[in-house]
Amino acid sequence: MKKKNQIMLSDYVLSFLRNKNVKHVPLLIGGAISFMVDAFSRNKKIKYIAVANEQSAAMIADAYSRSGAGYSCTMATSGPGATNLLTGIACSYFDSIPSMHICGQVNTYEQQGFHKSTKKVRQVGFQETDIVNMAKPITKFSYKLNRPEEIKYILEKAYYISTTGRPGPVLIDIPMNFQKMLINPKKLRSFNQPKNKLLHLENKIRKFKSFLQKSKKPVIILGGGIKCSNSQNQLNIFLKKTQIPIVATWSGVDLIDHKDYRYVGNIGVYGNRSANIVVQNADLILSLGSRLDTRVTGGKPETFAKNAKKIIIDIDNYELSKQRGLKVDLKLNYNLNDLLKELNKYNIKITRNDWLKKSMNLNHLFKFPEFKKKLSKRVNPYLFVNELSNVLNKNSIIIGDTGSHLTWLMQDFKIKYGQIMFSAFGNSPMGYALPASIGAQIINKKKKVIAFNGDGSIQLNIQELQTLSKLNLPIKIIIMNNHGYGIIQQFQDLYLNKRHEASNRVVSNPNFKFLSKAFKINYNFIKKNNDIKKIKKIINSNKAEIIEVDIEDKEKIIPKLEFGKPIDNLSPQINLNSIKNYLSTS
Amino acid sequence: MKKKNQIMLSDYVLSFLRNKNVKHVPLLIGGAISFMVDAFSRNKKIKYIAVANEQSAAMIADAYSRSGAGYSCTMATSGPGATNLLTGIACSYFDSIPSMHICGQVNTYEQQGFHKSTKKVRQVGFQETDIVNMAKPITKFSYKLNRPEEIKYILEKAYYISTTGRPGPVLIDIPMNFQKMLINPKKLRSFNQPKNKLLHLENKIRKFKSFLQKSKKPVIILGGGIKCSNSQNQLNIFLKKTQIPIVATWSGVDLIDHKDYRYVGNIGVYGNRSANIVVQNADLILSLGSRLDTRVTGGKPETFAKNAKKIIIDIDNYELSKQRGLKVDLKLNYNLNDLLKELNKYNIKITRNDWLKKSMNLNHLFKFPEFKKKLSKRVNPYLFVNELSNVLNKNSIIIGDTGSHLTWLMQDFKIKYGQIMFSAFGNSPMGYALPASIGAQIINKKKKVIAFNGDGSIQLNIQELQTLSKLNLPIKIIIMNNHGYGIIQQFQDLYLNKRHEASNRVVSNPNFKFLSKAFKINYNFIKKNNDIKKIKKIINSNKAEIIEVDIEDKEKIIPKLEFGKPIDNLSPQINLNSIKNYLSTS
Repeated sequence: MKKKNQIMLSDYVLSFLRNKNVKHVPLLIGGAISFMVDAFSRNKKIKYIAVANEQSAAMIADAYSRSGAGYSCTMATSGPGATNLLTGIACSYFDSIPSMHICGQVNTYEQQGFHKSTKKVRQVGFQETDIVNMAKPITKFSYKLNRPEEIKYILEKAYYISTTGRPGPVLIDIPMNFQKMLINPKKLRSFNQPKNKLLHLENKIRKFKSFLQKSKKPVIILGGGIKCSNSQNQLNIFLKKTQIPIVATWSGVDLIDHKDYRYVGNIGVYGNRSANIVVQNADLILSLGSRLDTRVTGGKPETFAKNAKKIIIDIDNYELSKQRGLKVDLKLNYNLNDLLKELNKYNIKITRNDWLKKSMNLNHLFKFPEFKKKLSKRVNPYLFVNELSNVLNKNSIIIGDTGSHLTWLMQDFKIKYGQIMFSAFGNSPMGYALPASIGAQIINKKKKVIAFNGDGSIQLNIQELQTLSKLNLPIKIIIMNNHGYGIIQQFQDLYLNKRHEASNRVVSNPNFKFLSKAFKINYNFIKKNNDIKKIKKIINSNKAEIIEVDIEDKEKIIPKLEFGKPIDNLSPQINLNSIKNYLSTS
Repeated sequence: MKKKNQIMLSDYVLSFLRNKNVKHVPLLIGGAISFMVDAFSRNKKIKYIAVANEQSAAMIADAYSRSGAGYSCTMATSGPGATNLLTGIACSYFDSIPSMHICGQVNTYEQQGFHKSTKKVRQVGFQETDIVNMAKPITKFSYKLNRPEEIKYILEKAYYISTTGRPGPVLIDIPMNFQKMLINPKKLRSFNQPKNKLLHLENKIRKFKSFLQKSKKPVIILGGGIKCSNSQNQLNIFLKKTQIPIVATWSGVDLIDHKDYRYVGNIGVYGNRSANIVVQNADLILSLGSRLDTRVTGGKPETFAKNAKKIIIDIDNYELSKQRGLKVDLKLNYNLNDLLKELNKYNIKITRNDWLKKSMNLNHLFKFPEFKKKLSKRVNPYLFVNELSNVLNKNSIIIGDTGSHLTWLMQDFKIKYGQIMFSAFGNSPMGYALPASIGAQIINKKKKVIAFNGDGSIQLNIQELQTLSKLNLPIKIIIMNNHGYGIIQQFQDLYLNKRHEASNRVVSNPNFKFLSKAFKINYNFIKKNNDIKKIKKIINSNKAEIIEVDIEDKEKIIPKLEFGKPIDNLSPQINLNSIKNYLSTS
């Protein structure tokens, strides 16, 4: 019997999510989540997106958070439903994306340990799996609901943990019998949020200013943490009074217009030459929200910006304290938005016009594409990315998958401020871009969304073409077909005497034309460099379009850093002496 | 410099696997596993199968073990490669299938905790993920190699654990830099296998015989443990002197010819009426290698074979000791093969001809299909299964996916002894049958392999159609198209007032005809009952064939047990009194 103010636990969960601005929940139904999913029939303010494999649900959610919603949620059934989420959850964990994953678990009385004697039995309930422990290494909080009355406290706590400090995913496992139980939310315990204070700030800001004053060749690094902390407005205020070179990591690549008079390029193992050189010749690095991973610093962090003082702002003290060779001169363990707000009160001006001018001049030296002269009969990937970059306006979201194509995209796409560009950088699963593009498009109905794939990578979640088709999402699905894991081929060429085991023509592709037909999506083929100009019209279509781009198997990523070298020593190597001299005279 | 007797660690791993009769390793290449994969170029006795998503690799391996090889292995790269394996590994864990999963991990010097300061950093190396802890809840042993010199000991230990006692999967995480190191296997430490003894056996066998002597209505249950312990030969010897009713669980369904004069049917929630009734009226249950899960006993185990003594043989003492309502009168915690060998020395005869005859008579009462009279315009799934069963000869392997179609298959397929039939019963992931069929076919070149799917379930690993096509495997891929998760619809009809949230026409399918074309596989469509006879010719084809079978959305699983009822009370309910009387007069 329903008492006054009582609602079903599942209904409470949905209204909690809706209050956190979650309007779409990607999910796949199954027995153990069925009462939770049924709650959607009673709440018209929040919808589900029925996917074809839960792996995509977690990737859709990840991209949903990244492309404007700020928070996201998935639901999955027990056992395989839950374990299918894990690769996508890991994307959110390593890239600090806040999201909540709600798994249905078998009824409490069917669980391991409900009877003491069943604690060590492999499985009691059908499809019972210990997802809470499996997810622990890739979530900030992973918890199985013990009593229905905990739901309010646990949702609030999980949300707080997920969105506070360094953000990340959380998982809540809800037994099937709890999902339909009645609760009175007004009578339930709440979670009390700890207060957040900025400690020792004045002293740190004094040091910060002193480093800046002494520096002749400062460089700012824009990292993904700027997005995670919603610091873009404060950053723009800060940058208004700043005339020094600016570089970005891959995660921070869309934080500045690439035509900005201070933007040199993105840095790292696959970075732009000019940006890498500028960083290596700087005397001060101001890193905003980057963990300065070895993909940024090179395999030996001690070779990174060797002669520069380093100021690093990172919310994650573990990242700040790691001792992998990079000496940090000033560690600022604060929420970046809070810190920038404080800094902006001080009206700090940083102007190094000569150094800025010389840095920017490098861009002319290394014009795109480095190896344009060696054009093949098929499509040159750099030319293609260049044209794609030309035709996309600022209301575009570009999502890269994993492989050579991602590297080509990051190396030569020129961001117009307002565009959103990302991939699941830290986890880098193949098969991310297609589901991610669904997450981006459902929350950005009017934007152009581009899923930028390789022929190998798109196959991992190819089933979601149906989800996209069913929802009439006008996503542009680009397949850079270089015939079998090009980035692996390049590795095998370099380190394994060109033995292409399990790559290249050993793998193979379906016929993408017929595949498009099977999913009722238009198909386009870009066969040679002269065809590249067709892309404009295709992008302007208001329907979903598959665009297969034919690329030579052996098309390389150029430039690229070999292991252990300093990041200005990109291969193919060039003589850096004269450039260093040029920059050193600032 | 290579010294005498030294070989590369990766080469050692491959020859170890080959010695365990592993001839094919499903894998997907990636940076962190690339040195391991390269070893295949130097060993022609073992091959890799390049898959399109690691999830399938683990399912291929699982089925490879089940369908004759006895042992299997996968390889995957760090991070998403490894986490993609998990759903497939869980299949092996819950169904006791021995397999080994080798993950590449990032170089040791790029790992969390290599520098003490990085212990709590989310990720150090690119795509680093703590797969060892993630896999622990679904493996018997999960270990990251600490030193290259451990490799021999760890492989031997992992294999021993995997294949001894109740079998299951193991995972070994091998850092990239170890993969190419040189070792001298002759100088490495070995694992000493503990000795295995059968304790207290005589006393137990005395009790066993005494229970049998007193019983008037004994029933034998054949469970999947008979296969896991390779007891089929000993079982056949045992059964030669046994004339009593025999029933099977789903896992044990192919252990006896269904035309055997003693075989009543399979039992459980979706079991055959006659078999369920016979079990419920027995006075002795002899359970061979079944964990007597609630899918077998019904949701309330205390209602299962209430008036019968129970002798249960299970290698897993945790399963034997679970107290969920089932009272066990004689627990035999032995390896089934060892125990049957002993029992067979005693020349035990069990004959209850009257009881056997009456039990078998029940089969005529409940003839297939129960609801033949209500045939729809589209294909009746039971008629289809019946015909499939007619046309397949004993050299066939039939693999079910998850959903209504699996239930239809298990309810009405009549096994010819020699056929192999299975699904991943305990984990039951959608998307299992297609990769599993690849695993079955590569080790059984001359057998007919049938992947039996639903339209919803096949989508989860649809990408592997390309793997199948590339390898020219003549698999018959049946798609029972009942338009969106029929088993969920039936649940929603029963418990959720027919609200088909996230099921039925909310989900949708690609055009399977064009899909077949995209993967260069022949396509066939079975539209109505009169078309069913076409199946013979299609099955006889020596190429891969996709067979789409059009089924009404609302086609039900009949009969089916509602939660909590004794297993002879299958819905739709019938009057059991006269049958009980008939059986009780034995």
